[in-house]
Amino acid sequence: MRVGFIGLGSMGLPMADNLRRAGHELCVYNRTRARASELSGVRVAGSPREAATGAEVLITMLADDTAVEEMVLAPDGAIEGLPRGAVHAGMTTLGHNLAARLAAEHGRRGQQYVGAPVFGRPDAARAAKLWIVAAGPAAALERCRPLFDAMGQGVEVVGEDPAQAAVVKLAGNFLLAAAIEAMGEAFALARKYGIEPARLLEIVNGRVLRSPVYENYGRLIAEGRFEPPGFRLRHGLKDVRLVLEAGEDRAVPLPTASLARDRFLAAVARGWGDLDWAALARVAAVAAGLDRETLPAPATAR
Amino acid sequence: MRVGFIGLGSMGLPMADNLRRAGHELCVYNRTRARASELSGVRVAGSPREAATGAEVLITMLADDTAVEEMVLAPDGAIEGLPRGAVHAGMTTLGHNLAARLAAEHGRRGQQYVGAPVFGRPDAARAAKLWIVAAGPAAALERCRPLFDAMGQGVEVVGEDPAQAAVVKLAGNFLLAAAIEAMGEAFALARKYGIEPARLLEIVNGRVLRSPVYENYGRLIAEGRFEPPGFRLRHGLKDVRLVLEAGEDRAVPLPTASLARDRFLAAVARGWGDLDWAALARVAAVAAGLDRETLPAPATAR
Amino acid sequence: MRVGFIGLGSMGLPMADNLRRAGHELCVYNRTRARASELSGVRVAGSPREAATGAEVLITMLADDTAVEEMVLAPDGAIEGLPRGAVHAGMTTLGHNLAARLAAEHGRRGQQYVGAPVFGRPDAARAAKLWIVAAGPAAALERCRPLFDAMGQGVEVVGEDPAQAAVVKLAGNFLLAAAIEAMGEAFALARKYGIEPARLLEIVNGRVLRSPVYENYGRLIAEGRFEPPGFRLRHGLKDVRLVLEAGEDRAVPLPTASLARDRFLAAVARGWGDLDWAALARVAAVAAGLDRETLPAPATAR
Amino acid sequence: MRVGFIGLGSMGLPMADNLRRAGHELCVYNRTRARASELSGVRVAGSPREAATGAEVLITMLADDTAVEEMVLAPDGAIEGLPRGAVHAGMTTLGHNLAARLAAEHGRRGQQYVGAPVFGRPDAARAAKLWIVAAGPAAALERCRPLFDAMGQGVEVVGEDPAQAAVVKLAGNFLLAAAIEAMGEAFALARKYGIEPARLLEIVNGRVLRSPVYENYGRLIAEGRFEPPGFRLRHGLKDVRLVLEAGEDRAVPLPTASLARDRFLAAVARGWGDLDWAALARVAAVAAGLDRETLPAPATAR
Repeated sequence: MRVGFIGLGSMGLPMADNLRRAGHELCVYNRTRARASELSGVRVAGSPREAATGAEVLITMLADDTAVEEMVLAPDGAIEGLPRGAVHAGMTTLGHNLAARLAAEHGRRGQQYVGAPVFGRPDAARAAKLWIVAAGPAAALERCRPLFDAMGQGVEVVGEDPAQAAVVKLAGNFLLAAAIEAMGEAFALARKYGIEPARLLEIVNGRVLRSPVYENYGRLIAEGRFEPPGFRLRHGLKDVRLVLEAGEDRAVPLPTASLARDRFLAAVARGWGDLDWAALARVAAVAAGLDRETLPAPATAR
Repeated sequence: MRVGFIGLGSMGLPMADNLRRAGHELCVYNRTRARASELSGVRVAGSPREAATGAEVLITMLADDTAVEEMVLAPDGAIEGLPRGAVHAGMTTLGHNLAARLAAEHGRRGQQYVGAPVFGRPDAARAAKLWIVAAGPAAALERCRPLFDAMGQGVEVVGEDPAQAAVVKLAGNFLLAAAIEAMGEAFALARKYGIEPARLLEIVNGRVLRSPVYENYGRLIAEGRFEPPGFRLRHGLKDVRLVLEAGEDRAVPLPTASLARDRFLAAVARGWGDLDWAALARVAAVAAGLDRETLPAPATAR
Repeated sequence: MRVGFIGLGSMGLPMADNLRRAGHELCVYNRTRARASELSGVRVAGSPREAATGAEVLITMLADDTAVEEMVLAPDGAIEGLPRGAVHAGMTTLGHNLAARLAAEHGRRGQQYVGAPVFGRPDAARAAKLWIVAAGPAAALERCRPLFDAMGQGVEVVGEDPAQAAVVKLAGNFLLAAAIEAMGEAFALARKYGIEPARLLEIVNGRVLRSPVYENYGRLIAEGRFEPPGFRLRHGLKDVRLVLEAGEDRAVPLPTASLARDRFLAAVARGWGDLDWAALARVAAVAAGLDRETLPAPATAR
Repeated sequence: MRVGFIGLGSMGLPMADNLRRAGHELCVYNRTRARASELSGVRVAGSPREAATGAEVLITMLADDTAVEEMVLAPDGAIEGLPRGAVHAGMTTLGHNLAARLAAEHGRRGQQYVGAPVFGRPDAARAAKLWIVAAGPAAALERCRPLFDAMGQGVEVVGEDPAQAAVVKLAGNFLLAAAIEAMGEAFALARKYGIEPARLLEIVNGRVLRSPVYENYGRLIAEGRFEPPGFRLRHGLKDVRLVLEAGEDRAVPLPTASLARDRFLAAVARGWGDLDWAALARVAAVAAGLDRETLPAPATAR
């Protein structure tokens, strides 16, 4: 299949590579052009528009809503190059409003939009083990399926409205953030009573929760291993903000998400925005007086 | 072994029964005497003191701190009957302060105290599949081991201070309460976007979290199945209070626990105290306007 | 002075009327044109652009950021009619980002922007007793002063950057929302112990806080008088969202604002968005089981 | 009148002094006996019991519930010396449960209990400007009135149940704590936008709230003046805990109080427990990265 692929970050690069290996014909675009040179056997476009030109399916895997707007909807954006009848599969974790807007804008041009955010960190992307949550018109989903199969271990279709895929993905990230925050608090409590976080984790996750997510994040937190980031803390903050916006639009109070948001901000204020989002748990330790602040100097104005 | 056993509730009864089957000689006490008649082949004591008299190990499995104080420390309490050199294994989820106080009081009488709270609901108690978190003097723990083996699938020793077992257990229940609350919020969000909670659960837990705890509680919440209670909501509230107290004593802010506490109170105010604690999740749905209140009438004074 | 005035809501209408009485020459615009007929002796424009044409100062007093964007920045918006050298005084409570953007857009056209949100409810607007918080270039502020004097009892200049006026106003509304929420909780507690909210208010505000704000809002809450709204609950939600955004942009965790936001959403979910924002306090009473829900029927999807 | 007076702290000492000046005959007790020497013309008792012996009215003004239990209810406590028919006026801010228990214990001995906590800091105590919130049997209240008049500027009777006075006082302190916390957040936000807290206070309190409480606490916070403490932060934590307990006993969720509690704990964990409780506001500044931590060293275990 002829595929346009925009966004070669820590997720996008291995995803594009898996598509190439599966025999698809790729035309890629990345703001920092050098990233594209890490992929052999693909065509490198000079603009998002060029990447989409002639594609049967356009895939975007970018940092956030703003990047998607700039790459797809702005003048000289991908939407102008994409042929009528083609499909855009947006795999970035987007807000539900932008998902709805993309569906509308593509529809107006005789194109189709599929929301297809993924669960999985860069190692899962490399191993083609992502879980893809998809929503959109049935025919368009069908069109994307061979591509999804090359990048993930399964596709979960949740409806025809791309905003629904956004909400499922956001709800998932919200549950992860809530679990990280709760672990941070539980670990701080345990430490004050002389119990090692790793030991608490072993018992509570090993015997009760038995979740690989608690295991993995709990391990990162217990060992203070926040670099290199699998998923940056400031992206976690972004997702929690999108969760809160999705809630606000339908009048859903989400106090756990609100709490997580404030903790993310406290982490960012300490300069931890580019650590792994598991570092959120360190805010609880600092609040309990367990870990020293790492601020280089008091910020006076901002 | 000669075992005194106090507390034949939904957890204690099957635990005592498993001890009896394993060949131990039991003398049981329960406030509501009739409960004891469900156990054959055991001696029924007329007071907590009598239950402890002559025992090598005394086991208590009661509702809360107050019940333990009344059964063990009050006049005619078990502590007066327990022989010097015997061990008291407290399997109730206790506050860390009462755990410390029991250790001191038993010590003063030449007895030993082991904190041994359990993870598992009544079905796990029946199947002898509990996980026992134990802390206390090594020799006393050794003494209890055959009994623990008859009731559970494993013992996790966390230290010599019984308060440590209390904290591990409380931290575990806190993580469960946090997960229930977060699921309640995520489900409310999903419903507002036309996504079934069961479907969200299938994706997020089935593909990402992969935890039997999310699976079990998520199922109860998605189906609104809160009766009969495996663990009563008002006991969950009690445990969160104990978590907060443990935090307060060592200056650990626990905002997720604070949030859960307020949600538990909102549930109790609606008359849900005797539902399964998974009903906590319903508070989020009501707050979002999704489920109708079930209050029979406005309470004016309390 | 020749004044363009856009937005004749419950605040804008009496403000414009006070300007007219002070002898200024007004050209007004309101989406619902009929509102303008309540003002005699003013010219009624057919578009925002027309209202601004020929004005020395343009005043906008609209519902929210979106309305300001539509009336000022959209095609045929006021910015196209406003002469070079004229001043736009934005008196709506805006987000800090839109304030900054307006300053930039006006600057590009040789116009000046002053942020000038107000404290005061409609009765204060009628009595020309508003407090105006202003920020902008000194000369532009001077230009606006006779107008501000006709509408308010004082002007507080907080800086040269219009975003600063936005932040002061938002911080003020945040403190009000926090006070309303706290009163709601204190009143719920008091009621459960047989103490009338009005009595608690009399003691705590009458003797300790001694604030007209607590007095006024406390009275509304104690008497359940939420209609007609002086300031709509959904506008309070909007302002709290803007507070949170201002915090997020500079990494300021604001947990009290987060809490208020969730309470506002719970109120909106119950259909109280058009009550006075003092109704926020009712959420606490409902959560405590004191007041019955007023939902007409369970919402199933939204 | 013959008055027993127990507790000569920063509040009790000036209160006792005002009673003495009004011509009452005092017998005082304080744990640290030296404090009593600052009062001339009073008898100094060797035990709480002795202080109460022969008194018509016993007044207690102690740090917290535990101190009251030890001084009044423990063996050799004041209750044993107090004559039948005498009145105990408890002026400490107590939990509602201890207030109820004192009423019962005194009743059993033919004595009467009046709950009479006060609003006001040490300077108000010295100036006999306290506000006294009283609840108890009418005749007993009447008996205390001349004493209350000598210590305060007014008495607010809220009912016959001493627990009601406790709840009114706790609700008042809760509103103060909520105001301090909200100011802390608003100030942190303002600082990040280059607005001085003192300037924000001047506008928002000077023009809108117009409360001496915001003025006084706002000033302390804006100037970072937390020593000497008028009311210690750890006593504020204690009161918020009592508020939460009062709420819990009647199923009242109090999320603002929960939030304040967590903030108090974060302050205590930083070693600020003996600063003025206005220092609570500094937690918000630290969370926003504005002020540096002052922890001497990372605490590893507690």
